[in-house]
Amino acid sequence: MRIRILVTGGTFDKEYDELTGRLYFRDTHLPEMLRRGRSMLDIQFETVMMIDSLDMTDADRARIVSRARECDERAIVISHGTDTMVDTAKALAAAGVSGKTIVLTGAMVPYAFGSSDGLFNLGSALSFVQVLTPDVYVAMNGQHFRWDACRKNKTTGCFETV
Amino acid sequence: MRIRILVTGGTFDKEYDELTGRLYFRDTHLPEMLRRGRSMLDIQFETVMMIDSLDMTDADRARIVSRARECDERAIVISHGTDTMVDTAKALAAAGVSGKTIVLTGAMVPYAFGSSDGLFNLGSALSFVQVLTPDVYVAMNGQHFRWDACRKNKTTGCFETV
Amino acid sequence: MRIRILVTGGTFDKEYDELTGRLYFRDTHLPEMLRRGRSMLDIQFETVMMIDSLDMTDADRARIVSRARECDERAIVISHGTDTMVDTAKALAAAGVSGKTIVLTGAMVPYAFGSSDGLFNLGSALSFVQVLTPDVYVAMNGQHFRWDACRKNKTTGCFETV
Amino acid sequence: MRIRILVTGGTFDKEYDELTGRLYFRDTHLPEMLRRGRSMLDIQFETVMMIDSLDMTDADRARIVSRARECDERAIVISHGTDTMVDTAKALAAAGVSGKTIVLTGAMVPYAFGSSDGLFNLGSALSFVQVLTPDVYVAMNGQHFRWDACRKNKTTGCFETV
Repeated sequence: MRIRILVTGGTFDKEYDELTGRLYFRDTHLPEMLRRGRSMLDIQFETVMMIDSLDMTDADRARIVSRARECDERAIVISHGTDTMVDTAKALAAAGVSGKTIVLTGAMVPYAFGSSDGLFNLGSALSFVQVLTPDVYVAMNGQHFRWDACRKNKTTGCFETV
Repeated sequence: MRIRILVTGGTFDKEYDELTGRLYFRDTHLPEMLRRGRSMLDIQFETVMMIDSLDMTDADRARIVSRARECDERAIVISHGTDTMVDTAKALAAAGVSGKTIVLTGAMVPYAFGSSDGLFNLGSALSFVQVLTPDVYVAMNGQHFRWDACRKNKTTGCFETV
Repeated sequence: MRIRILVTGGTFDKEYDELTGRLYFRDTHLPEMLRRGRSMLDIQFETVMMIDSLDMTDADRARIVSRARECDERAIVISHGTDTMVDTAKALAAAGVSGKTIVLTGAMVPYAFGSSDGLFNLGSALSFVQVLTPDVYVAMNGQHFRWDACRKNKTTGCFETV
Repeated sequence: MRIRILVTGGTFDKEYDELTGRLYFRDTHLPEMLRRGRSMLDIQFETVMMIDSLDMTDADRARIVSRARECDERAIVISHGTDTMVDTAKALAAAGVSGKTIVLTGAMVPYAFGSSDGLFNLGSALSFVQVLTPDVYVAMNGQHFRWDACRKNKTTGCFETV
């Protein structure tokens, strides 16, 4: 089973720019994270965009849906900012990308920080995508939710069932 | 779904003793790892032993089997040294612990080291245990293997299907 | 020799707020850094403020000068944002805090990030303060500069002699 | 001022071998540590040996003394295991390497571990070597000791004045 990882940015991949003191995007850390996890999975990486999900437009979401539909793989993990992850999950479901298991995941703390949840979430998402039946899911906090049954709790930062 | 994590030690939990220069076991890092992963799973921790799996005796393995059988949970993750992880998986299967999904995982590098695969494997194992049908599995390198279909490749350090 | 560490914030102590995605200040990491360095020095910590040095006003700088003058110690290290570190060094020199060795240091990357220079700079500053003759200095990039002989190169982020 | 760093191994540079589960030496981390500290110092690296200082023989110590004497630099930092650091300091003093400031330092925890004191000690030693008068010193725990006035306390792991 080959898995495609669509990289869209989000907190997962934010880095600290020491000259400006701001957070920004450079290259994705996903391949490095998989090397660290000693993953032996057959993975195809694709960086679709590198943005904060609060900045995503309908056009951006449409591009993600498009890549998910057109790629050869039937198992897809999408790294995404947590703020509008559910919106993208809904767009994917609405587009009817059938026969594929799609799992969106992200991080509350950038991987570049020592205390990141990124590696845990990535391991989690990659496992779910191998065993869940075709549909669109969100994988956060060790759990998985169907696209129409979750939301991000803005106060706690955690995802929960609705 | 409540998940029981049976801690047995292994490289996962090794620490560096600065006074002797040797690796040793103190307290398990598993709870701290789940906090870092921001896990919202309902987990019950149990430290069964803290040893290198090369030092496991039949009596040790019997105790692990015993705890897996007797605990209330139907989803169990076992942190374990990678060297004899498959032996313990086989012992669990032979004991016929029915109706439970048991996933063994470990790490090639101690969590206490910066470059550990531990957090990735833990996220992976916890996800598999929530979805796989009752049986005994090994989760390493992002993959999952049935107890009777894998081995550790001593040269590469990776797990593979047999 | 007792050393006073006056904490003023700066990149050294910035943290990532996972709910807002922004960098902010909470408690200083300096005591934890000294524990990690296994420092046996006699240190007195004092948090004067926790701000980005670009936000420092004359009143803020006056308070730092005031604390440096009034404290009992003759050896003082000041953790400070790098952007206006030289300005504070000049203010200290102008105030004529005599008989004291004062060393300002900071970090280009927050200590909370894995790749921080903070621990290196702290070790450096604490060593310089024990040996240099009374005056005001900046310690960055492994080097030390007198207050009237350095500036921060905004392009490279490094400090250099003028 | 050019500084020579003589690398001899010690806990500073130990790494974890995931295939054997043992600690061993590969390449020194010193250059990488200086990049992380954003050091602008003029440094010449020389790996003399990579061993645990408990395994040092008189011949090994003689080689270190030899390199310290023959190199062009007048400021030398030596990374060394802490167990017999004082013995090497004494050997250097006995050899009468005159006109040079030599500072030995090490680490209680390998740099490869997240909680290492290595970066702090390196920053400390490099600062001391730039300002102390020619002699042989040990720099540990934020402090500096003359070669004939210190020992390692085997119980606490810290260095103290004698």
